[in-house]
Amino acid sequence: MSQMARNASLSGFPELLPQERMIEQHVIDSLRKSFELHGFASIETRAVETVEQLLRKGEIDKEVYAVSRLQADEGAAEAALALHFDLTVPFSRYVVENAGYLAFPFRRYQIQKAWRGERPQEGRAREFTQADFDVVGDGVLPFRHDVEIVLLAVEALSALPIPEFRIRVNNRKLAEGFYRGLGLEDTPGVLRSIDKLEKIGPDAVARLLSEELGASEKQAQAALALAQISSADLDFVRQVRALCEQHGVQNDLLEEGLEELSSVLSAAMGRAPGTVLADLSIARGLDYYTGTVIETVLVGHEALGSICSGGRYDALARKGNRTFPGVGLSIGVSRLLARILSQQLATASRSVPTAVYIALTSDQDWAAAQDLAVTLRSRGIATEVAVAAEKFGKQIKFADRRGIPFVWFLNQEGGHEVKDIRSGEQVPADPESWLPPAEDLHVLVQPN
Amino acid sequence: MSQMARNASLSGFPELLPQERMIEQHVIDSLRKSFELHGFASIETRAVETVEQLLRKGEIDKEVYAVSRLQADEGAAEAALALHFDLTVPFSRYVVENAGYLAFPFRRYQIQKAWRGERPQEGRAREFTQADFDVVGDGVLPFRHDVEIVLLAVEALSALPIPEFRIRVNNRKLAEGFYRGLGLEDTPGVLRSIDKLEKIGPDAVARLLSEELGASEKQAQAALALAQISSADLDFVRQVRALCEQHGVQNDLLEEGLEELSSVLSAAMGRAPGTVLADLSIARGLDYYTGTVIETVLVGHEALGSICSGGRYDALARKGNRTFPGVGLSIGVSRLLARILSQQLATASRSVPTAVYIALTSDQDWAAAQDLAVTLRSRGIATEVAVAAEKFGKQIKFADRRGIPFVWFLNQEGGHEVKDIRSGEQVPADPESWLPPAEDLHVLVQPN
Repeated sequence: MSQMARNASLSGFPELLPQERMIEQHVIDSLRKSFELHGFASIETRAVETVEQLLRKGEIDKEVYAVSRLQADEGAAEAALALHFDLTVPFSRYVVENAGYLAFPFRRYQIQKAWRGERPQEGRAREFTQADFDVVGDGVLPFRHDVEIVLLAVEALSALPIPEFRIRVNNRKLAEGFYRGLGLEDTPGVLRSIDKLEKIGPDAVARLLSEELGASEKQAQAALALAQISSADLDFVRQVRALCEQHGVQNDLLEEGLEELSSVLSAAMGRAPGTVLADLSIARGLDYYTGTVIETVLVGHEALGSICSGGRYDALARKGNRTFPGVGLSIGVSRLLARILSQQLATASRSVPTAVYIALTSDQDWAAAQDLAVTLRSRGIATEVAVAAEKFGKQIKFADRRGIPFVWFLNQEGGHEVKDIRSGEQVPADPESWLPPAEDLHVLVQPN
Repeated sequence: MSQMARNASLSGFPELLPQERMIEQHVIDSLRKSFELHGFASIETRAVETVEQLLRKGEIDKEVYAVSRLQADEGAAEAALALHFDLTVPFSRYVVENAGYLAFPFRRYQIQKAWRGERPQEGRAREFTQADFDVVGDGVLPFRHDVEIVLLAVEALSALPIPEFRIRVNNRKLAEGFYRGLGLEDTPGVLRSIDKLEKIGPDAVARLLSEELGASEKQAQAALALAQISSADLDFVRQVRALCEQHGVQNDLLEEGLEELSSVLSAAMGRAPGTVLADLSIARGLDYYTGTVIETVLVGHEALGSICSGGRYDALARKGNRTFPGVGLSIGVSRLLARILSQQLATASRSVPTAVYIALTSDQDWAAAQDLAVTLRSRGIATEVAVAAEKFGKQIKFADRRGIPFVWFLNQEGGHEVKDIRSGEQVPADPESWLPPAEDLHVLVQPN
């Protein structure tokens, strides 16, 4: 029974059944393992920020949830608080507050819930889990970390029970350099217009560029042509060079962007051919990105939106005249999960952690059965003990209904037997050495 | 550097440094492992409940945090929401809403944050993490689950890096039966008074009993005498019987309570002698408990308050005329952690997950070093790669500063060597077979 078959009792706040939660745990465990194998440490930030902090970047459109004590002390001035709507704003505050205690470059991951009061739809809940991973430097952060982050994204996403994905990478320097080379100086304005390409189409974007930014027809067409370029190899360089030649564009920032994007593609092509694309239409809104920008789609599920986004920012945070440049990505765990569950892309092998159910022959055996359970658990086998010596048929049925694969019998003579209730096979077993098959020891989550 | 040395930038909302978070992760992982070995499945509930739901039990004193959209749609009636202040109220709602999808007895654990707007102090934050585990039945729930829950608490707490603890157990039936046998019919009233024993002392409680409940001096002294009884074995039965004889008390509910509490003690005495006490002063306020009640203190840290509390309730939830009895406990993860950190009761072996840092001999080796990192990671070794071929001394110093124990060198001739930077020992190593000592493979968290 999938989550999607039930209605959340509060719209936008879905809750999972135990067997669905197992898939979520698997996804989170898998991400954690990938992050830690790459040397990223976990942190968590508090759920609330001051409203002032949250709205500093003018993000009022994120539909912030304000938090206040129902019985606030009269007259006591407390800062206005709100639930965080992403993990970037809290992380940037955390870095500034704890800079003196962190070793830079600081590699952190953060898997937490966030809240936005938007209209709920599939893949867009009001309460959702994000998995962020960033490398942050103190003053400087070598570009190679951008490449590293993309390689980690490939690895982390590949380990999940999800369909094929495409990581689409662009570079702000490339785009901005090109616009400047064209003679368009309001590069944020051009980016803002190009960002609307998928939504409003090329003609409307061209109109925006000419009406709002005073671009000539030729400039507008050139900017649009740049956004059409994509390749799964280094061919995008040839395409950009051809476009530059056509429009007489020469620019140092553009060269830097080309080189950076080429480095990302070269590294990814060797590791995971076809998975990482140079896609010059990726703009990532306005935000704070200054170099690499990344979005990721699931093949066949493009309408779900990006499931892993982010990029390079020259100043994630500032403290006096100290800046903290960073590069990182955010994986939409809840968005992925909603799709996994609604389309049954993965399943858990059972709905309880329990591998063995110890049946009772007599009510007096309960203490002995508890001792046996301690032995099995000490060997990593999740075990439950029956509470009453009902008929074996009834005890087996109970285990079956709970989805437990094995029932253990303590014979009156002190012998042990274990039954696989799926096959019906029953064999003698030694509590000190018996193990279920590897695929039954723990709950397995596998893609369908 | 401990958390306690820094001030939370928002009072009551502490945040951990990476090495502190590792201890928290260890505590949570350890609890999860214990719960799952006993067949408990994980669930999470949303952070918010309707205010109506939260205040249903008159819990206004829990200092609820209300949640509302900063830009709520005008005229759109949305239910008033608030952050949950514990995990019991949300769980009871979850059981009612999902009863049709759950197999009973339902064994669940839930490790999540909760929020209360109380005045912050050590062990009492405004944002805190609880770990709850309960067994819930549909209509009935055999008493043996009470015993099971206590044994699980012993096991789960024993696995944590904390000092010795004492699980203090009482039984409501025992106390209520005794009060009734004494002729005191307002048993909730008596419990409410006895619950104040530690705070206001026996004289004041005797006064309350006589002034508010009309108890005679003899009745009041008998009720107080019952609360003084405790034992780490079955001696409490003898003491209760003596008191009953003295006051001519005979009561069936009392007998039931005595038998239940004896079962808990008998099972615990075999497993963990001295850890579980019968303590007849435990009242657990009013709440919804109907049998077993439990509180737990850390030896030498009694002022911290209970770190694991709960008990048996005959109706955690109701759905029409269907009731869901349960028994369960709640571990105060944040309370434990605050004490572990402030008194350095445990430490993490390093502050990053990374075990190996691959140094670069030349900048051109970076891609080869990434390949090497993939090999090491595939064997479970957390690995980082240097981004620039700085002097070896500088690269080693960098690893040291980040707390990484091993530096790996790729020789120009394709050979590999690995250096333990704590001992200085450097040996040839094969990436396909080398492993760090077990205690260096993962971050180890150990009690001091």
